[in-house]
Amino acid sequence: MTSPITPVPNGTVTSAKGFSAGGIFAGIKTPGIDKKDIGILFSKHPCAVAGTFTQNSVVSPTVTLDKERVGPDKQIHAVIVNSGCANTAVGEQGMIDAKEMTDLASAHLGVTSEQTLVSSTGVIGVEIPMALMREYIPQIEVSENGGSEFAKAILTTDKRTKEIAVSFKIDGVAHTVGGTSKGSGMIHPNMATMLAYITTDADVDPNYLQKTLSKSVKLSFNQIDVDGDQSTNDTVLLLANGAANGQKISGGDEASKVFETAILQVCQFLAIEIARDGEGATKLIEVTVNGAHSEDDALIASRSCAASMLVKTAVYGRDPNWGRIFMAVGKSGISINESKIDCYINDIQIVAEGKGISYNVQSVVSALSSDEVRLRVDLNVGSSSGMAWGCDLTEEYVVFNSAYTT
Amino acid sequence: MTSPITPVPNGTVTSAKGFSAGGIFAGIKTPGIDKKDIGILFSKHPCAVAGTFTQNSVVSPTVTLDKERVGPDKQIHAVIVNSGCANTAVGEQGMIDAKEMTDLASAHLGVTSEQTLVSSTGVIGVEIPMALMREYIPQIEVSENGGSEFAKAILTTDKRTKEIAVSFKIDGVAHTVGGTSKGSGMIHPNMATMLAYITTDADVDPNYLQKTLSKSVKLSFNQIDVDGDQSTNDTVLLLANGAANGQKISGGDEASKVFETAILQVCQFLAIEIARDGEGATKLIEVTVNGAHSEDDALIASRSCAASMLVKTAVYGRDPNWGRIFMAVGKSGISINESKIDCYINDIQIVAEGKGISYNVQSVVSALSSDEVRLRVDLNVGSSSGMAWGCDLTEEYVVFNSAYTT
Repeated sequence: MTSPITPVPNGTVTSAKGFSAGGIFAGIKTPGIDKKDIGILFSKHPCAVAGTFTQNSVVSPTVTLDKERVGPDKQIHAVIVNSGCANTAVGEQGMIDAKEMTDLASAHLGVTSEQTLVSSTGVIGVEIPMALMREYIPQIEVSENGGSEFAKAILTTDKRTKEIAVSFKIDGVAHTVGGTSKGSGMIHPNMATMLAYITTDADVDPNYLQKTLSKSVKLSFNQIDVDGDQSTNDTVLLLANGAANGQKISGGDEASKVFETAILQVCQFLAIEIARDGEGATKLIEVTVNGAHSEDDALIASRSCAASMLVKTAVYGRDPNWGRIFMAVGKSGISINESKIDCYINDIQIVAEGKGISYNVQSVVSALSSDEVRLRVDLNVGSSSGMAWGCDLTEEYVVFNSAYTT
Repeated sequence: MTSPITPVPNGTVTSAKGFSAGGIFAGIKTPGIDKKDIGILFSKHPCAVAGTFTQNSVVSPTVTLDKERVGPDKQIHAVIVNSGCANTAVGEQGMIDAKEMTDLASAHLGVTSEQTLVSSTGVIGVEIPMALMREYIPQIEVSENGGSEFAKAILTTDKRTKEIAVSFKIDGVAHTVGGTSKGSGMIHPNMATMLAYITTDADVDPNYLQKTLSKSVKLSFNQIDVDGDQSTNDTVLLLANGAANGQKISGGDEASKVFETAILQVCQFLAIEIARDGEGATKLIEVTVNGAHSEDDALIASRSCAASMLVKTAVYGRDPNWGRIFMAVGKSGISINESKIDCYINDIQIVAEGKGISYNVQSVVSALSSDEVRLRVDLNVGSSSGMAWGCDLTEEYVVFNSAYTT
């Protein structure tokens, strides 16, 4: 017996039982109101762990270290994260510093280095200021209410934190899944993305945990785009500590199904929030492709559309320029029949059977003025669907990235 | 015996013997000084023909028609081109109109429709104004001095025409290769690109002609990027009419080598001019990747760098942000060893063995202020090289494309 999945009010990465977190401002980033730049996520119970990581050939040593420490035979207690410096492309010092960060955090928390993961995000090519780490990591206080402190500590150019938690019951036992993520430039993830941390108090088989995470990442973080660029530090971690004292979840039953849905909901929420908060963005663009030959076709085509600079600028300019949507779907290389395509903007049909139709221009321009613009492409050649999310491209993205050293 | 390849002063697409061309303003585009929107390229001698076309699944019927009429067993006399309307995504009327355009041009020139090719470029989703075609195509006068008229007639958002011709001698016989192309948005070609027309008076075996064109396109048009988007109308045509009365060129000898070099030079010039004239661009970005495992690796990595929005905005902002160059090379997925990479901006070294080095910031910022910025990445894992070309990304691109209906 399972219950529906419901949102946890003001849910955070510490909403699941047994998780605590905290953050501190050490001066790695420029100061600001309520800014943090080092955070710790902690579970007093050991956690099964799953992770997906950047596919970029240039990889931060933090990712390399985490990959060694994540797996079905590993147990994790903590994650230490800093923002403001990516610890990438700094030579051998990078791995030395990444390891020392986990040494400092684990000593502070009373666990081992091998039970501690590490992420860094910020400028590439600059060494981690370890003196600050040595001074400030031991000062970080973790608590059950510290989820939002941690969410602040992982931000770089983001304008706001991204946090969620949902809960559901399995045979009367309450379970929670919480998470947080950060964006907001260099976003076109491949197999993994940016930074996101998801926690659950469910008791989950580790192999099944990794399978569930990978499947959810494919339909969430891997379907968003801000600027087509892929970070060297992308990481999604899912920690399951079993503190809910519920049954073992290992796939194939009703309890697993509700757990998988909860993980997907959290992943999609955190991914969409990254797209919405894209650098310089004024609008979220949601692209749905229906009637494709396969789910992969639908995912590829929807992402091609969400990632197209010409679609992004058309949405910014409130221009119902469906020729660019056609171009973007077509360049993805999937199998289509042009004369069967229908297009909709916020449910208003503008293309039928591959040709533009008469529509009320004022209605469509007004739809394009919303904070959320939904583009829908019905290919009508099969029965599979897929979704992707992006943001509009504005002058502010250009101004920002021509002045900011990533 | 062959001579060196030399530029033809004020060379155009009609510099090769036996080619003539012309253009007219029919009112498809908004009027402007010296604007043209229909052009004809003509050869009184029948031409062997080679072509490469867009790989986008949404294809203009003009491309579909040209593909039927291009091949080793075909002979071509003329190309009719209009700008301002792409004749794409307009249903069955598109093919009817494309064919009628070739009927009108061939009747005017005294050749057959099957000997006539057609291209259209401009807004997608709008039908060709055939009444204008019927009135104006018969009025187009072609002449040996009309190359620049034709070059004007194919432009859309381009700021200037792109024209070149080079000549060389084979056993004392002068041969010429000329060409013209247009850009300047929706540019990230795949296997073919935009519109480009190349002419030669050499007598060339048709199978060898296609092989030569495909090889040159791979190293020129397929290595440029303005905005990552791929047009539905991309076309490169190479016409060889044999009017120089030289020997047959069919590969494998010294004469073929000089011919191949001339074709590559013309393709690279026309491709680079498209990148330089990218929408909103203020600078040309040339990326060279050396020391790769294979030529394909070097081509992929250089193009990934030239196409990265974060590299483009950094160059615009004169920011020597080599972390973004690393990210872009890494996301291409080629095999690298991070600790061996050296980076240079306009020959000033800024990265050695994967780490930033001290450099004179003023010199590098000043190098980034040039009209042409050369980024060089030495991977030092192999001996292959590749080049790609892009332009910077500016606020003007966003303003332009949020207001313009492609």
